[in-house]
Amino acid sequence: MKAALIIIGNEILSGRTKDKNLAYLAEWLNEIGIQLYEVRVIRDDEKEIIDCVNLLRKKYNYVFTTGGIGPTHDDITTASIAKAFNVELETNPEALNILKGYYKEGELNEARLKMTLLPQGAELVENPVTKAPGFKMENVFVMAGIPSIMQGMLEGAKIFLEIGNKMSSKSIDVFMPESVVAGELSKIQDKFSNVEIGSYPFNKEGKFGTSLVMRSADLQALDRCEHEITAMVKKLT
Amino acid sequence: MKAALIIIGNEILSGRTKDKNLAYLAEWLNEIGIQLYEVRVIRDDEKEIIDCVNLLRKKYNYVFTTGGIGPTHDDITTASIAKAFNVELETNPEALNILKGYYKEGELNEARLKMTLLPQGAELVENPVTKAPGFKMENVFVMAGIPSIMQGMLEGAKIFLEIGNKMSSKSIDVFMPESVVAGELSKIQDKFSNVEIGSYPFNKEGKFGTSLVMRSADLQALDRCEHEITAMVKKLT
Repeated sequence: MKAALIIIGNEILSGRTKDKNLAYLAEWLNEIGIQLYEVRVIRDDEKEIIDCVNLLRKKYNYVFTTGGIGPTHDDITTASIAKAFNVELETNPEALNILKGYYKEGELNEARLKMTLLPQGAELVENPVTKAPGFKMENVFVMAGIPSIMQGMLEGAKIFLEIGNKMSSKSIDVFMPESVVAGELSKIQDKFSNVEIGSYPFNKEGKFGTSLVMRSADLQALDRCEHEITAMVKKLT
Repeated sequence: MKAALIIIGNEILSGRTKDKNLAYLAEWLNEIGIQLYEVRVIRDDEKEIIDCVNLLRKKYNYVFTTGGIGPTHDDITTASIAKAFNVELETNPEALNILKGYYKEGELNEARLKMTLLPQGAELVENPVTKAPGFKMENVFVMAGIPSIMQGMLEGAKIFLEIGNKMSSKSIDVFMPESVVAGELSKIQDKFSNVEIGSYPFNKEGKFGTSLVMRSADLQALDRCEHEITAMVKKLT
């Protein structure tokens, strides 16, 4: 099961807002056996959104988007998704009911009503935080950009997702530079085609070293690979 | 002047490593008048890297890549860039000299020598931190993924970059929900075609509000726009 994330928002690309959704989504998906394969950060631009959504929804099992579903003029994600699917926007009665129940008489102004205009055929994705829901069109999940709301919506999206094979990982930290382990590590990688071995330099309080990370859905292969890497490290120390 | 960033690395997509390069690059580029228009996070996969680089280098003035230029088997960026440009890898004499000067006799092992193999025609991008240089092929800058090294390489890349018109920004925080300002804000946006107005909800120590952010290269328009937004806020309070 493969997924992509589209982060929509000029504020991320200008550096004003630091994205927190990528790392959260990656770990959350991994827990239910879905791998995040690609992320794109794009501007609040209708054509960019349409092209990006239409490309990635064909390429992956699931596409998640964050950002641009609020009430202001720069929130153009929902309308762009409707165009991507070639459908009209319409007042979603269920979304309208939710907001009517949440806001006091008179508070449900024109801007907030905009958030009940969803693409025809959209299914709601619950928002436990501020109620205005996200939505799903086929395999595309459209969520808010604010991390707390996005995280709530993900729980709402869970009922629609097919669970995959969970990737497990093991990590061994060695206090050697990457270049010392590189040769042997490469040979071990060649032996384990279904284990993804990564090597990441670190500096922990002034001590330099390398994290050797193994990831696989095959727990037995992961154990054997760990065994070989441990033996290699012993030999090199 | 428009730029794209390609973040290369399975460790970002698995959530193991939290990217810090996007926000840094965005702000750094903005200071010299270059706008970050798009970011992609992709796997350590040769075909993905080649396709992505070849697409984006035609679309933007500059492309920056981070990650995958170290000495281990999972560092495949350099070789993939060579293929994207349809050239061979060769020992870069200048890179070799730098590493010969940095490492002691015997320390320049096979894995480290891999880092002197660069695409034909590559120009070096200095790395003040760990010496092994980044490089540039036409408008593509290939840098390390470790933030401190990447930040050093950016300074090395600066001599190659053409300075653009710097975008300035102003921000007004109001303690009202987005939906209250949405209507008037949209009218102001319509008046200022060269000012990008964004609206971002915040929660500062339990107080909810909205940041109204204006960005433009035209300082006079920015001032006029700020004036109108301030007046609008006063009217609504």
